[in-house]
Amino acid sequence: MFVILVNVGSHFDPARSIFVAPRKGVYSFSFHVVKVYNRQTIQVSLVLNGWPVISAFAGDQDVTREAATNAGLVMMERGDKAYLKLERGNLMGGWKYSTFSGFLVFPL
Amino acid sequence: MFVILVNVGSHFDPARSIFVAPRKGVYSFSFHVVKVYNRQTIQVSLVLNGWPVISAFAGDQDVTREAATNAGLVMMERGDKAYLKLERGNLMGGWKYSTFSGFLVFPL
Amino acid sequence: MFVILVNVGSHFDPARSIFVAPRKGVYSFSFHVVKVYNRQTIQVSLVLNGWPVISAFAGDQDVTREAATNAGLVMMERGDKAYLKLERGNLMGGWKYSTFSGFLVFPL
Repeated sequence: MFVILVNVGSHFDPARSIFVAPRKGVYSFSFHVVKVYNRQTIQVSLVLNGWPVISAFAGDQDVTREAATNAGLVMMERGDKAYLKLERGNLMGGWKYSTFSGFLVFPL
Repeated sequence: MFVILVNVGSHFDPARSIFVAPRKGVYSFSFHVVKVYNRQTIQVSLVLNGWPVISAFAGDQDVTREAATNAGLVMMERGDKAYLKLERGNLMGGWKYSTFSGFLVFPL
Repeated sequence: MFVILVNVGSHFDPARSIFVAPRKGVYSFSFHVVKVYNRQTIQVSLVLNGWPVISAFAGDQDVTREAATNAGLVMMERGDKAYLKLERGNLMGGWKYSTFSGFLVFPL
């Protein structure tokens, strides 16, 4: 149901859609989660070890496709987990255009 | 009123919300500034030493939350200042979900 | 018609608006393509060697300016080409606020 463009080091677990930090450092994450036309609002959060740190919304009722998008830097210890959580609403096929990417900016 | 997730090197001055470049190089900046429901349009610019270099808009009148978002690379000399400026409109609480992040891509 | 903020190494060809990878590696790309008020939907894709890999949409009919935005990591061989393609709609002046940026995250 999705395509992994880049997964160098295999630190993204595709079965669970979780990124596990290979080492301590600052990581950059970016996400664009697309919903198709429906009358719901979606809320998507970047979750770090179970805690939402960055959220985004899409709630327009009159457009075909709309993205809840945000980005940021987070500090991670080795083994820390980052993933996206759909806190509200559903995507109804929008996964096709959704992206989630991250990389190590520098180690600490 | 806001949370700093990462500030390695302390080059972001939280009192003034200004990033001061610690050295010459190419920096990547990304911002997502959220407004809550209101009938205004907001315009947000990334300002480099007083000059707006990248702008973004959010102007939908029918949604609860919407982000003015953009990103880009800029070349900075040591001591150059980068910050966000709300050129038009107001956020009315949207600061809670707004993000601003930057990092050194490579030194020059 | 546009401003190049950063083009270190001159791997972006401004005449053709194409980025040519100087070496094999993982590259990060980000785009925000702005349309001004009109009744069209735009679709913008990041194209890698002729294949669209990431798409974005903007289709609101009631706002003055709206961005089709997305970002992601792609693996490129030396000489691979990346560029933006407007698959549907037109921008009508939105180019003024549109951005396209990319950089090498790490070599392979």
